[in-house]
Amino acid sequence: SSLTFLNLVEVEEQARHVLTKMAYDYYSTGSDTCSTVVENRTCFARYKLLPRMLRNVSRVDTSHEVFGIRSSMPVWVAPMAMHGLADPQGREVATCRAAAASAVPFTFSTVATASFEEIQVTGHSAAIFQLYVIRNRDVVRRWVTEAEVRGFKALMVTVDAQRLGNREADERNKFTLPAGLALRNLEYLSTGSTAQARDSADGSGLMRLFAAEIDDSLTWDFIPWLRSITKLPIIAKGLLSPDDAELAVQYGVDGIVVSNHGGRQLDFAPSGLEMLPAVVAAVRGRVPVLVDGGIRRGTDVIKASMEALALGASAVLLGRPVLYGLAVGRQAGVERVLQLLRKEIELSMALTGCACLRDIGPQLLLPPSRM
Amino acid sequence: SSLTFLNLVEVEEQARHVLTKMAYDYYSTGSDTCSTVVENRTCFARYKLLPRMLRNVSRVDTSHEVFGIRSSMPVWVAPMAMHGLADPQGREVATCRAAAASAVPFTFSTVATASFEEIQVTGHSAAIFQLYVIRNRDVVRRWVTEAEVRGFKALMVTVDAQRLGNREADERNKFTLPAGLALRNLEYLSTGSTAQARDSADGSGLMRLFAAEIDDSLTWDFIPWLRSITKLPIIAKGLLSPDDAELAVQYGVDGIVVSNHGGRQLDFAPSGLEMLPAVVAAVRGRVPVLVDGGIRRGTDVIKASMEALALGASAVLLGRPVLYGLAVGRQAGVERVLQLLRKEIELSMALTGCACLRDIGPQLLLPPSRM
Amino acid sequence: SSLTFLNLVEVEEQARHVLTKMAYDYYSTGSDTCSTVVENRTCFARYKLLPRMLRNVSRVDTSHEVFGIRSSMPVWVAPMAMHGLADPQGREVATCRAAAASAVPFTFSTVATASFEEIQVTGHSAAIFQLYVIRNRDVVRRWVTEAEVRGFKALMVTVDAQRLGNREADERNKFTLPAGLALRNLEYLSTGSTAQARDSADGSGLMRLFAAEIDDSLTWDFIPWLRSITKLPIIAKGLLSPDDAELAVQYGVDGIVVSNHGGRQLDFAPSGLEMLPAVVAAVRGRVPVLVDGGIRRGTDVIKASMEALALGASAVLLGRPVLYGLAVGRQAGVERVLQLLRKEIELSMALTGCACLRDIGPQLLLPPSRM
Amino acid sequence: SSLTFLNLVEVEEQARHVLTKMAYDYYSTGSDTCSTVVENRTCFARYKLLPRMLRNVSRVDTSHEVFGIRSSMPVWVAPMAMHGLADPQGREVATCRAAAASAVPFTFSTVATASFEEIQVTGHSAAIFQLYVIRNRDVVRRWVTEAEVRGFKALMVTVDAQRLGNREADERNKFTLPAGLALRNLEYLSTGSTAQARDSADGSGLMRLFAAEIDDSLTWDFIPWLRSITKLPIIAKGLLSPDDAELAVQYGVDGIVVSNHGGRQLDFAPSGLEMLPAVVAAVRGRVPVLVDGGIRRGTDVIKASMEALALGASAVLLGRPVLYGLAVGRQAGVERVLQLLRKEIELSMALTGCACLRDIGPQLLLPPSRM
Ligand SMILES: Cc1cc2nc3c(=O)[nH]c(=O)nc-3n(C[C@H](O)[C@H](O)[C@H](O)COP(=O)(O)O)c2cc1C
Ligand SMILES: Cc1cc2nc3c(=O)[nH]c(=O)nc-3n(C[C@H](O)[C@H](O)[C@H](O)COP(=O)(O)O)c2cc1C
Ligand SMILES: Cc1cc2nc3c(=O)[nH]c(=O)nc-3n(C[C@H](O)[C@H](O)[C@H](O)COP(=O)(O)O)c2cc1C
Ligand SMILES: Cc1cc2nc3c(=O)[nH]c(=O)nc-3n(C[C@H](O)[C@H](O)[C@H](O)COP(=O)(O)O)c2cc1C
Repeated sequence: SSLTFLNLVEVEEQARHVLTKMAYDYYSTGSDTCSTVVENRTCFARYKLLPRMLRNVSRVDTSHEVFGIRSSMPVWVAPMAMHGLADPQGREVATCRAAAASAVPFTFSTVATASFEEIQVTGHSAAIFQLYVIRNRDVVRRWVTEAEVRGFKALMVTVDAQRLGNREADERNKFTLPAGLALRNLEYLSTGSTAQARDSADGSGLMRLFAAEIDDSLTWDFIPWLRSITKLPIIAKGLLSPDDAELAVQYGVDGIVVSNHGGRQLDFAPSGLEMLPAVVAAVRGRVPVLVDGGIRRGTDVIKASMEALALGASAVLLGRPVLYGLAVGRQAGVERVLQLLRKEIELSMALTGCACLRDIGPQLLLPPSRM
Repeated sequence: SSLTFLNLVEVEEQARHVLTKMAYDYYSTGSDTCSTVVENRTCFARYKLLPRMLRNVSRVDTSHEVFGIRSSMPVWVAPMAMHGLADPQGREVATCRAAAASAVPFTFSTVATASFEEIQVTGHSAAIFQLYVIRNRDVVRRWVTEAEVRGFKALMVTVDAQRLGNREADERNKFTLPAGLALRNLEYLSTGSTAQARDSADGSGLMRLFAAEIDDSLTWDFIPWLRSITKLPIIAKGLLSPDDAELAVQYGVDGIVVSNHGGRQLDFAPSGLEMLPAVVAAVRGRVPVLVDGGIRRGTDVIKASMEALALGASAVLLGRPVLYGLAVGRQAGVERVLQLLRKEIELSMALTGCACLRDIGPQLLLPPSRM
Repeated sequence: SSLTFLNLVEVEEQARHVLTKMAYDYYSTGSDTCSTVVENRTCFARYKLLPRMLRNVSRVDTSHEVFGIRSSMPVWVAPMAMHGLADPQGREVATCRAAAASAVPFTFSTVATASFEEIQVTGHSAAIFQLYVIRNRDVVRRWVTEAEVRGFKALMVTVDAQRLGNREADERNKFTLPAGLALRNLEYLSTGSTAQARDSADGSGLMRLFAAEIDDSLTWDFIPWLRSITKLPIIAKGLLSPDDAELAVQYGVDGIVVSNHGGRQLDFAPSGLEMLPAVVAAVRGRVPVLVDGGIRRGTDVIKASMEALALGASAVLLGRPVLYGLAVGRQAGVERVLQLLRKEIELSMALTGCACLRDIGPQLLLPPSRM
Repeated sequence: SSLTFLNLVEVEEQARHVLTKMAYDYYSTGSDTCSTVVENRTCFARYKLLPRMLRNVSRVDTSHEVFGIRSSMPVWVAPMAMHGLADPQGREVATCRAAAASAVPFTFSTVATASFEEIQVTGHSAAIFQLYVIRNRDVVRRWVTEAEVRGFKALMVTVDAQRLGNREADERNKFTLPAGLALRNLEYLSTGSTAQARDSADGSGLMRLFAAEIDDSLTWDFIPWLRSITKLPIIAKGLLSPDDAELAVQYGVDGIVVSNHGGRQLDFAPSGLEMLPAVVAAVRGRVPVLVDGGIRRGTDVIKASMEALALGASAVLLGRPVLYGLAVGRQAGVERVLQLLRKEIELSMALTGCACLRDIGPQLLLPPSRM
């Protein structure tokens, strides 16, 4: 193919050229000073890897499973809003197809520009639904039902977005959804004011409505309620504090994603990587712990997986590079992103002397305290 | 309005364009190498915030009270000389009106380009008088009387300026007060040489006289003397050492501002933020402790407030951005500065899971020692 | 002569101008983000040297011996592939002649553009053969026999290259061996597919074949097998973990090179310098420990030698500057590189108060933990 | 006057414009990578000063005395070669006059472009002779006699220059003494080859001879010999290790200068400031300890003086800025350099709350370990 990017950093550079400024800024930006966006990358550079030599690495197995969801590598596609900005035709459908072709789980955002049905039609056997909790619990219930009916494998409840972070670039750009794209899941909001929103041509009305509908009084009580209406595994996404991890487990979640929402919510939040050891320690193996933020290289996956993989459970979520791949090369672009990452993981495992994920352990990691 | 700045860093950039070089340098500069000016910003970046999730943040209350002085947020306008450089018409009066409109206390500098009376006329119910102690105690006594009579709520005695810092930019620019501005409080210096100074057209004569009049033999004995002539709360501004904090309390102050004078006095002084924990520890809750220097973001306020707010007492002083707002948009510019900061504080509280200031505690802070 | 470079950093700058981009990139590059290449240099800057004064340094002796191999300084030329890219006529032969003239040991890479015989003809009395282990053990055995027969003094088995690092620059440049150069040692691979490769005009066929032939199932068992077929000292090159050092000793190696392969294999591997103390501690003097990566200055050699020289055993390997010297000035260029380094070592020893290598000890080193 | 520089950093910038490249490089340069030159400045930035407030600073006394040598501030002019490059007429004579006018001790280098007699004629009551020890002890003896006869107050024996550092800029510039300048003290070397050297027009012959004559077999035994031929105080300049300080005291020196020779000898040597506490601790008050390297600001003097002044003994040596002042403004330029530094010291003392040097103590210093 004509896709020339060689890694998941370069793809951003190429995407910057094909996306509108408004779309690129929306995808890449963080809140306030973007210090957490930067930290999400630099935190990885603080860790070194101590490789082991002369182990038989003629067969390196990157395959992974958690919550009964299988993957060709310990990576899932993170939930992200509005893939349609990158590929107005393909949208989440193209991304999901690429994920399926790569045998990588795909997380479908509440704020998607595709519908449950469209995702189902791709036939991907490993789709997860990401849930933003809104005040209208009837709609929440309908989303959950849809997810179950359409064969989704888990629910990922985002717990760090009761308010939207202060993203100045979007404010400066007066971000709106381009004509022709619709936030399909939000159409379930069919009350009076919603009908009005749906009528608005550009879909931005729905977005504003949605922002207003987000339930900022949400507390952990929501988890038992959700458990009472579904059998799907419930994964809490977006906590950083070990105390919140303890609460999440007590309230009955089946898994946790340690995350700062890609630096888009609280500026100066620590990286998921930094908090991971404390969270894993608090969770004590009771549920799997995943992590995201700033994953761009195979070595990042090794570093991020270190602790949790030792528990035989974790994966990382991959965010922006997927959108950039979609922008640069549509479905094929996403496939290349996932393929490059898999190749890097495989090679990094070989070079560190790990034939399978179980071999990846904390002994490989030189923490910042060393030198 | 036509005010386009989105945060308190951007407003400086805009102010740089509308101010004369002499005025901009005077406002922005620090002493010697300006290392402390830089440190006042970078010290905040060394702290991360550990947010808590799924707390009910549907109502976030930023309101604050200390010394019986109420504020819409834990922020006061810092005492700053010569607002008239930014807005020759409006001067401190415009700033004070903006503070009043924003329900934020305003501190009136000894070296103001407005008079006690003009401040009183604004009707602001939360004005504080900042006192530079000069040799002529009769004048000091008259200032204090004015402050009482005009309804000021507290006295803030600056303890770090017995000598003026070495500000090379001002020396290079041969800084003088522009024609049309007068240092109104200094006109009380009505001895022979002063009369002469008052006659000088540009007011710089008064400035020079004032520099010569500052009492560089001042010691803590001054506090009991001041206490003996006024009932107003006395706040010592500008100490950094916990030993000085202990002295201040022993000599009877009612409050303390930990401050390095915006990096304008001793170069290589530590930031107020760095010394805050040691000072709070030394004070042991006997009096409220405030802090200033480099506050530009809502998250800075959270970080600076962390320790002291746990004692239910603190606030931060906001300096230069107020002057920049005044330069860019006069009263409305200052209001926008205060409004943006309040919005950021409110959002940061929501994103960290704090519904009111009491919820902000040291458990939210990841100190530099972590990673 | 017309060689103007004054140190081993400057020579790279000059080489960059005379080499093709493809060759320069091949020589200089590292894997992935090149973070380990950078680290290999910056790690030295983290150490300071504490000199001693007024010692008699009128005679400074830099001469060194290990494994019975004598050198004019504690430096060996590292094994490096394809010197022919720098000097198509001279190739490894020119480098080896320069090393001989400088009384410095020379390591001959498996992936050389010269033959065993050509190296023998130089008459250098201190040549070492670097061995990449391939699946075809008959060829390995023939290489070892050649090394013995041609008078090589030791075997250096590279243990960190069962897979090739991800060098994106080479991928971008579509790196191939220029016409006229041949990988002479690989011609021993005379099976069917090899014959075909040999036929390919540019030698790149051999390279690809070689990459495919590398034994990625290699384990430490190889060492006893190698020991069983040769009397030469066996040095394991390319380990970083103290646990691997322990294994190496247990499996019978005669020496160790702590190395990350010049940052060309696992990105984010620590520097040899960083791991040296832990490896030396694990080895407990049982075999000599050498180190490489980023050596460019006399002070680097002092720092790198510190610990191991105290055991009377170590040397450092010098990599890229040798290739750059060859590119800039052929044999004379390499001689100048070695001469400059020797002069710097000699002067640094004098300035630190060390008359001979035994005087260099850990007491001279201020580690990063100080300030 | 027309001298416009406002501090001792700016004067370098101005000097760069008036000096030839050869002279500027000679003055400013360090050895190898110049890392120690840089460190000599950056080390100061790692320390912060914790000021004390409301102390009576109406009279600040910067006057200082050590070895019976009085100074208007705790600063001496460091020994530096060849002032004639900066001011061919004035040379060391102009510098010495400026030092005298500023009541600051002046150290006269062995490698001066003026004579003992010329220095005596200035009438400066506080001149020190810096001694480079050469093999020819008769000449050394004559220098010492000259120093005594001409009224010098102390001898400063440089112990870190048995070999000259590797200064690549000088090598590149083919540094030679310009015509018209002579190394007057070296003319005492009147043996055969010296006569020849003296004949050489440009004085560079003498320099080369001198380099060859330096005694690189020198050991601490020299100190008792020197003590046996002079009554002047003997100060050892250029050690960094506490063990060398112990030796120096045991061999009978009267004082020590902790110094890395302005970064011109061993690259990657620590700064004098860094080693000062360890040396002071080793010396245990038996002799005064001075320090140099990178002093440019009043706050630097406070930081450097901290520990040793507590022992009532120390001073700092000021190097390059003196030469730059000489280049920019001849004698008046040096006076301005010294005056600016004194003003900064005085102001920094006032701002830290120190009325005299005895008040400067370690309690003012925030070491790097804090934050
Ligand atoms: C453009 C964009 C949209 C996102 N939308 C959502 C979302 O709808 N729901 C959610 O839980 N997280 C969302 N996230 C956060 C991601 O799930 C993920 O936490 C983050 O992007 C990971 O960091 P990375 O982009 O550095 O890999 C979004 C992130 C981006 C960049
Ligand atoms: C232009 C200017 C004038 C100032 N004048 C005074 C003053 O008259 N009295 C005083 O106590 N502090 C004065 N300060 C110090 C401020 O009160 C405050 O400590 C400092 O500006 C806070 O730092 P910030 O500007 O980074 O927010 C002044 C600061 C500036 C920038
Ligand atoms: C161009 C190049 C080719 C190399 N080829 C080999 C090789 O064939 N065998 C090997 O063991 N190491 C090889 N190395 C690694 C070197 O032996 C050595 O570990 C490394 O270059 C030392 O780092 P330095 O270049 O920073 O001095 C090579 C390095 C370079 C730069
Ligand atoms: C141009 C130059 C010449 C010097 N010559 C001598 C010298 O002749 N004897 C000596 O002991 N030190 C000499 N030094 C070192 C200084 O005495 C002093 O240690 C150093 O310059 C202090 O650092 P600073 O220049 O950063 O202030 C020289 C330094 C310079 C810059």
